[in-house]
Amino acid sequence: MRIAVDAMGGDHAPKAIVEGAMDAVQQIDNLQITLVGDKEKIKPYLTNQTNINVLHTTEMITGEDEPVRAVRRKKNASLVLMAKEVKENRADACVSAGNTGALMSAGLFVVGRIKGIDRPALSPTLPTLDGKGFLMLDVGANVDAKPSHLVHYAIMGSIYSEKVRNITKPTVGLLNVGTEDGKGNELTKKVFTQLKEAPIHFIGNIEARDLLSGAADVVVTDGFSGNIALKTIEGTAMNMFSMLKDTFLSSFKTKLAAGMMKNDLKKLKTKLDYSEYGGAGLFGLKAPVIKAHGSSNRRAIVSAIKQACHMVEHQVTETIQMKVKQMQDKNQGENK
Amino acid sequence: MRIAVDAMGGDHAPKAIVEGAMDAVQQIDNLQITLVGDKEKIKPYLTNQTNINVLHTTEMITGEDEPVRAVRRKKNASLVLMAKEVKENRADACVSAGNTGALMSAGLFVVGRIKGIDRPALSPTLPTLDGKGFLMLDVGANVDAKPSHLVHYAIMGSIYSEKVRNITKPTVGLLNVGTEDGKGNELTKKVFTQLKEAPIHFIGNIEARDLLSGAADVVVTDGFSGNIALKTIEGTAMNMFSMLKDTFLSSFKTKLAAGMMKNDLKKLKTKLDYSEYGGAGLFGLKAPVIKAHGSSNRRAIVSAIKQACHMVEHQVTETIQMKVKQMQDKNQGENK
Repeated sequence: MRIAVDAMGGDHAPKAIVEGAMDAVQQIDNLQITLVGDKEKIKPYLTNQTNINVLHTTEMITGEDEPVRAVRRKKNASLVLMAKEVKENRADACVSAGNTGALMSAGLFVVGRIKGIDRPALSPTLPTLDGKGFLMLDVGANVDAKPSHLVHYAIMGSIYSEKVRNITKPTVGLLNVGTEDGKGNELTKKVFTQLKEAPIHFIGNIEARDLLSGAADVVVTDGFSGNIALKTIEGTAMNMFSMLKDTFLSSFKTKLAAGMMKNDLKKLKTKLDYSEYGGAGLFGLKAPVIKAHGSSNRRAIVSAIKQACHMVEHQVTETIQMKVKQMQDKNQGENK
Repeated sequence: MRIAVDAMGGDHAPKAIVEGAMDAVQQIDNLQITLVGDKEKIKPYLTNQTNINVLHTTEMITGEDEPVRAVRRKKNASLVLMAKEVKENRADACVSAGNTGALMSAGLFVVGRIKGIDRPALSPTLPTLDGKGFLMLDVGANVDAKPSHLVHYAIMGSIYSEKVRNITKPTVGLLNVGTEDGKGNELTKKVFTQLKEAPIHFIGNIEARDLLSGAADVVVTDGFSGNIALKTIEGTAMNMFSMLKDTFLSSFKTKLAAGMMKNDLKKLKTKLDYSEYGGAGLFGLKAPVIKAHGSSNRRAIVSAIKQACHMVEHQVTETIQMKVKQMQDKNQGENK
């Protein structure tokens, strides 16, 4: 197994990335990692080079770079060279905690799409109350989605959930403004009918209110709405923790109470921390591309690398390709 | 001031509605309320009839009724008769905690639209960290919105915020997938340009992550995305409180800590409870129509009635009508 890792992307790069890579090769058998980035900046943290090599480049894409332009112009950026490792078959998959838009561009233009998939989908696993989590796609790779795109998302999400998350017959829900059949905007109304025909376990519409209660294993939606839902979850959780903190600090009594349950509150925060669930996969590309959260620490990087390995091991890409081809052959057969 | 109130709508109807109405007439000068509903069910709670009369009907629309059909067929339902009081000028505004879809239908088909406004918008005020709150519209009246609709939302939201919420030059943000200009889907890209030209204080794109931090006084979005954002806030807050409760009940120590800060936690919950901010206005109709939250208690009903009174008093409807006409005259002038 060969994984290319962007050593320069993310808030804690290169430290957390290099340390995470060293942990990953210890924990996963037969793993070879290529760290892409500035060797001078990587070296101080790379205390053990077993199964790790460095592909040196000083160019990098920052969070402020305009994604498409950056990928086109900064041809030697660590993120671009990482994708090229995959494209030119020197790596089986890649992982970056850098600029999300740039990673999507590099995925699309460098790694390339699976034949039959029109649009890749950004697919994070989000927390649920029961700790099981759910996969939501798309959260922003494609903000003007067509019904057929969402059907592909449903198929890709189901395959990933079965193969990597070990869920038998994963349930698929359509994010909508109501749970009843026939609800929604033009897009969701059309998709609903198509999802009923698709080779997945479709359970109908689900409301945003029920996302964190685990209403479905896979939630499909257009990239605009998915992005709104994802960032609303983040924002609400963040604001509530901040309010909670203010409450705890408001008096001597509350400070005392907070001290008494510090560990329990920490557990609660961990439960809602979705870097615990690994990175967001960019599904629909010719090889697994994983976007680790920008704030990823050493442990989150290990999770993201493991996730990439699982996707390669369980042939997620190949299965998606096969399933989409079967569906298209079937549709063509029916249309003859 | 004459307000028609649906006595039969909401989880705690008719008790909370009748009690709220009695409180409201005590608190607001020259207020006359018409309670619409089953007089036999209203009577036990109506201990003071000062400035309250009852319009009797036994028919009602439930939460399970299909909205449009219910409004068309149940011509004597309390919610429909309430809207008719407004239409036939026996009331200046109306309030219901019942079926949201049915209220939107009754608003549209019975009360009617303001000339020049194509689509009404459902507009709740949501909580922010600083307790100031923000207005979001639309959250589901119109799930397939056009750019011009969102421009109207921005104007209506600004007028309401100025007149009723006393905010001078309210800031208007466009809910989007990123804060930079040029971000978004087809709809938001088009709206962005139009909002820059509109007679409002437009501050650009805002992300869902920043909603509760009070990024703008007025947030405009299409009804689909707005509904997703609203329900995601609700669901995340609800789930977090539930997790917090579990944490507090997990051991003797945490139970003790919870007891110590019970009142502080209650305050936190109140801060996030948006029934505290009144009901959701249905803007763009010929008279104020207020949707009180389904779970409204006595106090929330008083807030919603006050809100309706303020909208009448400050001539929100008339101002919207005037402003939209001015804009259209200007556009026609420019197109000549």
